Parts: sequence; C-alpha cells; structure tokens
Amino acid sequence: MALTILKGTVISAPALGKLDVTERGYLIAEEGKVTGVFPVLPKRYAGAAAEDFGDALILQAPADLHLHAPQYPMMGMGMDLPLLDWLNTYAFPTEARFADPDYAREVYRRLAQDLIANGTTRVCMFSSLHRRATLILMEELEKAGVTGYVGKVNMDRNGAPNLQETTEESVAETLRWLEECSDFRYVRPMVTPRFTPSCTNELMAFLGRLAAERNLPVQSHLSENTAEGAWVRELHPDCTQYWETYAKYGLWNGRTVMAHCVWCDERERRAMKDAGVTAVHCPDSNQNICSGVAPVRVLLREGVKVVLGTDVAGGDTLSMLDAASSAIRASKARRVMDNWGTDFLSAAEAWYLAASAGAAFFGQQPGFAPGNSLHALVLDDSRLLQPHPLTPEERLERCLYVRQPGAIRAVWSAGRKVFSAED
Amino acid sequence: MALTILKGTVISAPALGKLDVTERGYLIAEEGKVTGVFPVLPKRYAGAAAEDFGDALILQAPADLHLHAPQYPMMGMGMDLPLLDWLNTYAFPTEARFADPDYAREVYRRLAQDLIANGTTRVCMFSSLHRRATLILMEELEKAGVTGYVGKVNMDRNGAPNLQETTEESVAETLRWLEECSDFRYVRPMVTPRFTPSCTNELMAFLGRLAAERNLPVQSHLSENTAEGAWVRELHPDCTQYWETYAKYGLWNGRTVMAHCVWCDERERRAMKDAGVTAVHCPDSNQNICSGVAPVRVLLREGVKVVLGTDVAGGDTLSMLDAASSAIRASKARRVMDNWGTDFLSAAEAWYLAASAGAAFFGQQPGFAPGNSLHALVLDDSRLLQPHPLTPEERLERCLYVRQPGAIRAVWSAGRKVFSAED
Repeated sequence: MALTILKGTVISAPALGKLDVTERGYLIAEEGKVTGVFPVLPKRYAGAAAEDFGDALILQAPADLHLHAPQYPMMGMGMDLPLLDWLNTYAFPTEARFADPDYAREVYRRLAQDLIANGTTRVCMFSSLHRRATLILMEELEKAGVTGYVGKVNMDRNGAPNLQETTEESVAETLRWLEECSDFRYVRPMVTPRFTPSCTNELMAFLGRLAAERNLPVQSHLSENTAEGAWVRELHPDCTQYWETYAKYGLWNGRTVMAHCVWCDERERRAMKDAGVTAVHCPDSNQNICSGVAPVRVLLREGVKVVLGTDVAGGDTLSMLDAASSAIRASKARRVMDNWGTDFLSAAEAWYLAASAGAAFFGQQPGFAPGNSLHALVLDDSRLLQPHPLTPEERLERCLYVRQPGAIRAVWSAGRKVFSAED
Repeated sequence: MALTILKGTVISAPALGKLDVTERGYLIAEEGKVTGVFPVLPKRYAGAAAEDFGDALILQAPADLHLHAPQYPMMGMGMDLPLLDWLNTYAFPTEARFADPDYAREVYRRLAQDLIANGTTRVCMFSSLHRRATLILMEELEKAGVTGYVGKVNMDRNGAPNLQETTEESVAETLRWLEECSDFRYVRPMVTPRFTPSCTNELMAFLGRLAAERNLPVQSHLSENTAEGAWVRELHPDCTQYWETYAKYGLWNGRTVMAHCVWCDERERRAMKDAGVTAVHCPDSNQNICSGVAPVRVLLREGVKVVLGTDVAGGDTLSMLDAASSAIRASKARRVMDNWGTDFLSAAEAWYLAASAGAAFFGQQPGFAPGNSLHALVLDDSRLLQPHPLTPEERLERCLYVRQPGAIRAVWSAGRKVFSAED
C-alpha cells in the first residue's frame, strides 16, 4: 500500500458546483493517504511504478449515505404501493428472512461486491434487526472493501409478527452486537432506530444514552412521507415536529444522518442546521414510493448539510452515478413545482453531493485533498460516441447520465485497490 | 419465417392496466403473424421445433415513438441548459455533422444495433435535415431489424449557420428523399417539420399538402416548454394555441404524432382527442431539459392517445424499459404537483403505453393479439435475487425498474429473429 500512483484524467469536486480537472495527471497516495494531484510526476516519485489508465477518468469514489441492505433482494418491486403499505407488504417480509444466516451470507456477499463494482466505497447502511445477520453484513462489506457505518435496526413496535423485538431484546441484542463487532477495522457500528413509529420511548431513550456514552453516530428517517409525519405527531403529541422526537432522546446532533427530509419545513430545516444534522437526499426512492420531492436547493441555501443516498430498495439502483443524475432530475421537478423559483442542481453540484459531501461525514476534506484517505474509481468512457472532442466536465456529466455497464475499471477504498475489471 | 414457436412465461398488455400472463406457455406465429398464446402446445403444432427459453419472460417488443437519431452521439450532455439553449449549443452542432455520410454511417449503424439490443423494434424517428444521411439511417435501421417511420427533418428558419435549408432546398430535398426511399420495406417515410419555429409558413403549407397527397404520417413537437410556447404564439399571432399552427396547414390528424405535450391545456388536449392525434410522452427528456411534467393521467382520462418515447438525446437512454419506469416516476412527481389529485401510472399501465399503445400507431391490436405482426423480446431475469417466489407481474415490474445489462436474450421484429445474445 506504501505508494499509489494513478495516471489519467483526474476530476474532483473541491466545492459545491466546482470541479478540479487535471488531464493526464497523477493522483498520488502514500500509505493510503492522498498526497496530491499533479499535472506532471513530481521528481521525488521518478522511477516509481504508476498505473496508467490512459485517458480514462479518475474520480472520487462516491458515498451512499442511506440504504437498506436486507432490501437489496427486492429492488424494483412493489413500487405501486405507498411507503407504509410497501413496508408491510414487501420490506418487512423480506427483512424477516434475514433471521437465516445462510440467506444473509448469500445476499450480503453479493451486495458488497455489487457496491464495489459500482464504485461505492463508503456507506451508512441499515441492516435488519437481526444481530447475526448484521455481523455477517459487516464481515462481507469489510471483505469486499466497503467502509463506513452499519446499524443493527431497532424496532420494538409497529413491525410485523416475525419482524419485531421486545424492548428488552432490542437493548440486549444491540449491546451484544456492539461487543461482537468491535474487531472490524473499516466498518463501524451506528445507532439505528428504524424510525420513530418503530421505537417505543423507552427504546429511544436507551439508544440516545448509548450514542452519547459510546460516542456513536446515529441514522434514521425524517419527514419522508405525509402519512408518516401525521402518524409521528399522533405518537408524540408533546412534539410539534418530527425532528423533536429524535432530539428529545439525544439522537439529534452533528453525527446524525437523517434520510429523506422531503417534508421538512423551515423550522425543521433550521433545527437540522443548528444541530449539524446531515440530510440524506434519496431522489429515486422519493419518486418511486411517491413520497414527494425534497427541497434540496432550499436545504443547501439554508446551510443544511446534504448528501445523497440510493435508499435501496425504495431506490432501484445501487449506482451513485445514477443517484446523482436522479438528484438533478428531482431538482428540476422541484423547480417546476416551485414555479421556477428554485435553481436545479448542476452536474458538478450533484457530483459534489455524491462524492465530497458524502465523504465529509467521514471526516474528509472535499475533493482529493492531501491527507484524505484514498477513495477513487477509474471510469473508462471511451465506448461512448463523441459528437466533438469533449471537455472533462462534459465527460463527467455523461457518466452521471448514461449507464455504461462495465465502464468502472478499478476502485480504491481506504487506500486499497479493491476492484479491478480484469478480476 | 414460416412457423415460430417461442416457449417461456408470456406476458402481454391487452388493455391499459391489464396484463395477460401464460406461464411456461407458447407464443406462436405463422408467416410472421401472431397465431396466439397457448398454455399447452396445440395439437396441430405437435412435433414442430420450439425455441424453449425456460422460465424467461417473453414480452412484446416496445415502440419508441420519439427520438432524434443524429443526437445519439450526445446522449447525456448539456443537461444543465434549457431547451432552446441546449438546441443551439449541443443539438444543432451535432446534427450538422451528419452532412458527412461516413459519420452518419458509423453512428447510425451503432444506433440501429443498440435499439435492437434494447428490444426496440418500432420507431417514429427524426433524422437531421440531410437527405443522404436520412437514407443511410433508413438503410441501417432496415438492416438491423428496426421498423417504423423516419423523417428527414425540415427546417428553413431559426436553425444554425450550418444547419438550415432554404425553403426551396427543403422542398426539393424532401421530394428527392421520398423518391429515393421508396424501396425500403420496413422503414417508411414520415413528414417531419422540426417544430413550428423551424419552418416558414410556406414550408408548413407544402408539408401539409405533401402529407395529404401521399398519405404520409406526420411527426413534430408540441407544447414542450413554456419559452417555446411563447415563441410560437409570437410567430403565429393568428393562432391562439400551438396546435393550431399545425392544424392550419393540414398537419393535424389521426396519423400525427406530437412529442411531449407537457403544457397542453384542456382545449389543446380536446383538439388532440378530436383529431386522433397521438401524444408521445418523453418523461426522461422532460425532466432532463427542465420542460416540466406532462399531465399523462389527464390525457389518458380525456381519451387522448398516449404513447412513450425516449427522446434521445433530451432523454439519456435508448431503453424503453427505462422509459416506462421514468413515466411512472414522472406520474408520481405529477401527482405531488397536483396535490395528490391524479393517480400515478401503475407498472402495468406504463408497460401498456410502451408496448401496446405504441404498436397501435402501426395498426396493431393490443398485446399478442392474433394477426399482429410478431414483435417480441425474451428477457432472462434469473440473475436477480428473489426475496420470495415472484409472480410474473412482479417480475415484469422489476424489469422496468432494474437495469439488467445483457438480460435481453433474443428479439423478433416483424416476424424475423433480429437479435440473439449469443451473436
């Protein structure tokens, strides 16, 4: 791992809407940490072996900040149902199957490999409530080279007959899971109340204490769907807004990621900004299960941290390139809904959200900043026709829009080469 | 071609929202015409060779009723621009390259093959204004097995310096093109004013007479974008609505397809219904170039004929499976915009639009009706994980949502086998 030199057209997103481009440049990392991007090979590396990818694009590997691992087998199903019906008819029965460790092993091995083949090297991911399956998921991610956070889901109410814990079970299994997963290096635990309707107040209180005591990050769902919002208010008559049901139990801080945020109003958005909570925009899922269209431009303008997620299996693709173009399309639908009053996301902005903003949750600087852990992918777009000699920016845009099976040639995660198309 | 017997799980769309399913059944055609779908092989075919695709899905091959062949090389580019700027910056310069027959040959061969590999066997397609390139396009489509209509584009104003004809050139080249393309069997000519702003009144009048005299179908664009609509009203102060600029020149009848129809109001929709004009919904393009979200449910409810198109390169995919799921997603965005007042499209409805409604423009009955020309594809979805034993309807839904490179195993067009994954 000592020295990595990648040669190609290096593109990174150092700020929202900005791209840094070095054509036929060198991306260099030492001991897994980025040294820099150079137009010519610095003298001190003369003679060192470089992996030369010709004119292929070298991009930051994106981060998927919200997906449900046990829903991977049901991608693209039941989309004619709204969220709560879809959960009961499809998601819960599918998740219940992960009581079986063999099934978990089969699915999670494939999921982990598929993530890496799609260039996704960082995740915040929901498992199911099953402790063993969650450990298997973490093992398979670690083995494949996916890094980030995984949560054993907590749900002690409003589940399904075969997909619910008692409060005591949830507490005991969560504690045992935390003990058992302490040896993973790249995949770490995350406190994961499924969403407010799934957790009793007692369980929420326990999870808040746990996050504080052990300094753990938190993930959950927020204001995805109007019916869900109404239900939450019924369950917590003391809270005027959804976010308060998390805040009152200590689950609302700078290490919290909240998926969706479609229906957050100004006050809820301000609460996110003030606490440093990260909003995970999942455009594909929001459209598929008819949740609505999140006000991403407004969130950004108001200073809320926004990242992207696929939300498999509300989303129907693992590709964060797809997620970026979906985010652009959603922002354009939103623009129409807002009477053209909000700007849509540019390709450079969407890619920033997928790559740099996602990595920021893991303590990284934007782009290929020196000191960042090396997370990169090589994308060979040479099979596409070219109407004229393209700029690197145009090439990046096409990579977001046009699906190119097999175009990702190699992937690095936390400094390690974890995928090569020749494998 | 005499007898074709395909065995598999046959799914067809006999009516909007309805699916006919015959598991491990037989789709039979004689002399290229569908005889029927049978759960067991009828005695009269005993001993005849069947192509057995096991449990794979046998579906109607879809029809793409709107795309721009010369924009194929620029798929997924310039999407940060609105329609009129995008045309000037990307589409027109790219189309201008098709003055070169060699470039046309290279691009159109690949386009034709790519369409067939995606299962699309029928099209209504725009070429560029170039007569020779249009003939090359028709040749390549015919060779690959794509059937339908192609139009040499007419544009004698508001083009680009190297992409515009005089009225005389447009008339002369169109007449010559019609002579030269008379020998194609499966690909026929279609009268194609680019859109109202591109054609002088004199040219429009000529095209209307031409369509009437030679009994030719017509394709153009309608009410795609608000700026475009305003421009049309400026150009035709005598017309209160966009559609009237076509109607007054005889370009508005039961053999007319109009792409987009995003901003058609009630009166314009009624004019479509009354004349039997077909609306081509291009959801992906409408979102990409920020046109808006077409009111598909309303169009359907009011009895307008609605079909689907990819609108490459406003759209970023040639796949009509993608177009169907995009239509569903767009209908869900529309539902939100309509304050939940309009139903979204179900998977069965979207597939009906992509397959049966599209084929209806070519005189076909819905589904695999006896007498229909055999247009079918075989899709092997066995690589996907299955959370439970899936119904055929669930399998079809997943095929619309989840991109499965290489899953289309074989394609028939007008009775001929035109694609086999082993090729």
